[in-house]
Amino acid sequence: MTTKKFVEAITDMDVDFAQWYTDIVKKAELVDYSSVKGCMIIRPYGYALWENIQKELDFQFKQTDHENVYMPMFIPKSLLQKEADHVEGFAPEVAWVTHGGHDELAEPLAVRPTSETLFCEHFSKTVGSYNDLPKLYNQWCSVVRWEKTTRPFLRTTEFLWQEGHTAHATAEEAQAETIQMLNVYANFLEDFLAIPAIKGQKTEKEKFAGAKATYTIESLMHDGKALQSGTSHNFGDGFAKAFDIQYTDKNSKRQYVHQTSWGMTTRVIGALIMVHGDNSGLVLPPKVAPTQVMVIPIAQHKEGVIEKATELKNRISKIARVKIDTSDKMPGWKFNEYEMKGIPVRVEIGPKDIEKNQVVLVRRDTREKTIVSLDALEENITKLLQEIQTSLYEKALNNRTEKTYEATSMEELKQISDEKQGFIKAMWCQDLACEEQIKEEAGLTSRCIPFEQEQLAETCVCCGKKTDVMVYWGKAY
Amino acid sequence: MTTKKFVEAITDMDVDFAQWYTDIVKKAELVDYSSVKGCMIIRPYGYALWENIQKELDFQFKQTDHENVYMPMFIPKSLLQKEADHVEGFAPEVAWVTHGGHDELAEPLAVRPTSETLFCEHFSKTVGSYNDLPKLYNQWCSVVRWEKTTRPFLRTTEFLWQEGHTAHATAEEAQAETIQMLNVYANFLEDFLAIPAIKGQKTEKEKFAGAKATYTIESLMHDGKALQSGTSHNFGDGFAKAFDIQYTDKNSKRQYVHQTSWGMTTRVIGALIMVHGDNSGLVLPPKVAPTQVMVIPIAQHKEGVIEKATELKNRISKIARVKIDTSDKMPGWKFNEYEMKGIPVRVEIGPKDIEKNQVVLVRRDTREKTIVSLDALEENITKLLQEIQTSLYEKALNNRTEKTYEATSMEELKQISDEKQGFIKAMWCQDLACEEQIKEEAGLTSRCIPFEQEQLAETCVCCGKKTDVMVYWGKAY
Repeated sequence: MTTKKFVEAITDMDVDFAQWYTDIVKKAELVDYSSVKGCMIIRPYGYALWENIQKELDFQFKQTDHENVYMPMFIPKSLLQKEADHVEGFAPEVAWVTHGGHDELAEPLAVRPTSETLFCEHFSKTVGSYNDLPKLYNQWCSVVRWEKTTRPFLRTTEFLWQEGHTAHATAEEAQAETIQMLNVYANFLEDFLAIPAIKGQKTEKEKFAGAKATYTIESLMHDGKALQSGTSHNFGDGFAKAFDIQYTDKNSKRQYVHQTSWGMTTRVIGALIMVHGDNSGLVLPPKVAPTQVMVIPIAQHKEGVIEKATELKNRISKIARVKIDTSDKMPGWKFNEYEMKGIPVRVEIGPKDIEKNQVVLVRRDTREKTIVSLDALEENITKLLQEIQTSLYEKALNNRTEKTYEATSMEELKQISDEKQGFIKAMWCQDLACEEQIKEEAGLTSRCIPFEQEQLAETCVCCGKKTDVMVYWGKAY
Repeated sequence: MTTKKFVEAITDMDVDFAQWYTDIVKKAELVDYSSVKGCMIIRPYGYALWENIQKELDFQFKQTDHENVYMPMFIPKSLLQKEADHVEGFAPEVAWVTHGGHDELAEPLAVRPTSETLFCEHFSKTVGSYNDLPKLYNQWCSVVRWEKTTRPFLRTTEFLWQEGHTAHATAEEAQAETIQMLNVYANFLEDFLAIPAIKGQKTEKEKFAGAKATYTIESLMHDGKALQSGTSHNFGDGFAKAFDIQYTDKNSKRQYVHQTSWGMTTRVIGALIMVHGDNSGLVLPPKVAPTQVMVIPIAQHKEGVIEKATELKNRISKIARVKIDTSDKMPGWKFNEYEMKGIPVRVEIGPKDIEKNQVVLVRRDTREKTIVSLDALEENITKLLQEIQTSLYEKALNNRTEKTYEATSMEELKQISDEKQGFIKAMWCQDLACEEQIKEEAGLTSRCIPFEQEQLAETCVCCGKKTDVMVYWGKAY
């Protein structure tokens, strides 16, 4: 009996990446579908990932002096309409509550697609003088955007996220906050999720509805498609003017506040899957893995094996999140199951190992086996977890480097877009017309104007006008 | 200049308890009103309370092997209607989404008032054999119930809560789970929030829509009104039959599962206010207080005072949640402000204290001042925080004891209800007619049939029929 039969195989990622993704979210028990179209059920293993993400981000937010609050999930229609660009951007995807109990409401309520308008209304009531600033708020909640086609984590009608909302006395402070939070996101993505991030600014076309400037971190999936992984918006005083949010400065002069907002969502779980996963299932970076080490006794019916395995589990619990599986399933079944779940390290211990005072450690990412002395168990596991975290990041970075191309003419741009999938760097004149032409002819959207600029050519890839602006283009989830 | 002028006084609780409550939630900056009728904004200080409550409860749930999940916030109308009693109970207070974007939906979606139906649908798909049981799930989210009259924390259209949902192989296991979680709630209320809890069962009339039995913890507010502070429901196999949730047992026989659900909400913050608060504002038990100790420098312009105060704050931060206020506001203003916020211990340190190597500790609850040596700072603060926690519980218990009455006839019941406010213990025959008559004539609802029974009389207080069942009656929030 081979181990292959224990778990039904998932689709090969090189054959059908989309199906491979769907197989993983189901087989690793991350989500389930519900009878509510476009909404997902986040199962315990998926939610444990989100809890670890929340915990780390919440810590970072508090370290940078932000406080959590909770706003209502409903927004009256008239309130949503106060900022013109904002409502135009969101109206097509709003879910509307029209009845409460048996009565029709006098005014429809939007289920929040995002909460700028509620925070603005609150700021307009609670900001009086410069002493009240800055307001540095965050909220954890779910939001709803009516989507036609949905995929678990990547695009769902309802999703979980955090949304930061801040108000500042000056434009400089608001800009510093916007960039600070983009950096928090980028560091989180790189250090915690082991996903390389490109930091940059969105074009006018792609910016948030109502923002003066939107900054983004863009990451590249294994298949070469891009994923916007977090955004940070500087609103200037646009919302402040629409909602009349003023404060009295030190010279007793009335001034409008300057605002920001920033958000990261359950989408990043999609990124985790598509950046690190392989044909055996999930591969989780140790920092975010709900279980970092799984202990599996071999020939567990033999005397002393389960006892020794439990002893190891207890030792490891002091340095890592560890579980043990002493169920009567075959070891091969267990190997497959925890590979599917992406648990970073497997510890195998059987009668022969006990005899030799050793243990077998197996990395999920490379499947490399090492035999280590029981006396050096803790230090080896700690080292291995660190190595896996680093090595996953490097592998993802290599994949991105391999799949990042350059184009200096439309011909080249179209050819790369036809033949390859990845980031394409190309110069752009900042005209909407060229951005739209690139989308139409090459099927590419601008991902961002990266902070790290390169002068690949003197002229716009589309119209030939002189420019010194380079853009990352790509096909995006 | 007296300290009284610094903070606008709140209404005297003995003059107008309802207004006193409203004043506190506003002045302690727990909530703000929004333009969404019946919904509240939970401000940073209020949310910090909820975060501490969440953290402790979540720990307790995980200790008892529950896993967190997330279900959609929408429930299709047809799904909500599957269990007859359940939909009848909730339909009058459901908010309905009828439009998504610009289109009318084929089927209206309820914004979840509670999630039994969603969990049932999920269980029906994921429970196959006895190996899949028990399912021990919890979810943190907000729910919506359309309310006509609302009050912050106590009754709002949207509120935050956790809802546990479990499925078991046997009726015995389901009953054990129901009682286990009731005990988790009762211990949490008593140990963490310092609020005495009466554990008991709801009458048929007051039980949850769709439950076989509802258990509750009831607490008494300072004004003698009762507050239902947490409930735990045993569903038997009623939902399992409505949703066809079956498993194959060890003898290959198909069996229905037995289910429970249990919930605690932001209401308990209302209880915290109304059990412990006084005419100077909030009084918080140390275990739930976001800030346990506030350091206030006296004559802080004098050399060395702020430095010494900061040194103390750093020392205290190793043993408690501590803050320091070095703003240029007068100490009297600061005293009032942090009394309003209910911070358990105030540390005052001025030039004279520094000279004498001492510090002044002031308890929020009793306002008792003690002067302690700086050498014994940590041990005195630790001791004081424990004392406050215990003493708040005892004070609340005394208040409840004082306001708990007994009645053995309808005359007596009506008289007590007219003249006093509190719990009234009285015998009841378990007939709905008597329960309704007591409500109509004495204005009292049954709070619970307590686990700790007393034989106050031989007969029902209303009809005179023989009974050995005692009930707590009261007026409730």
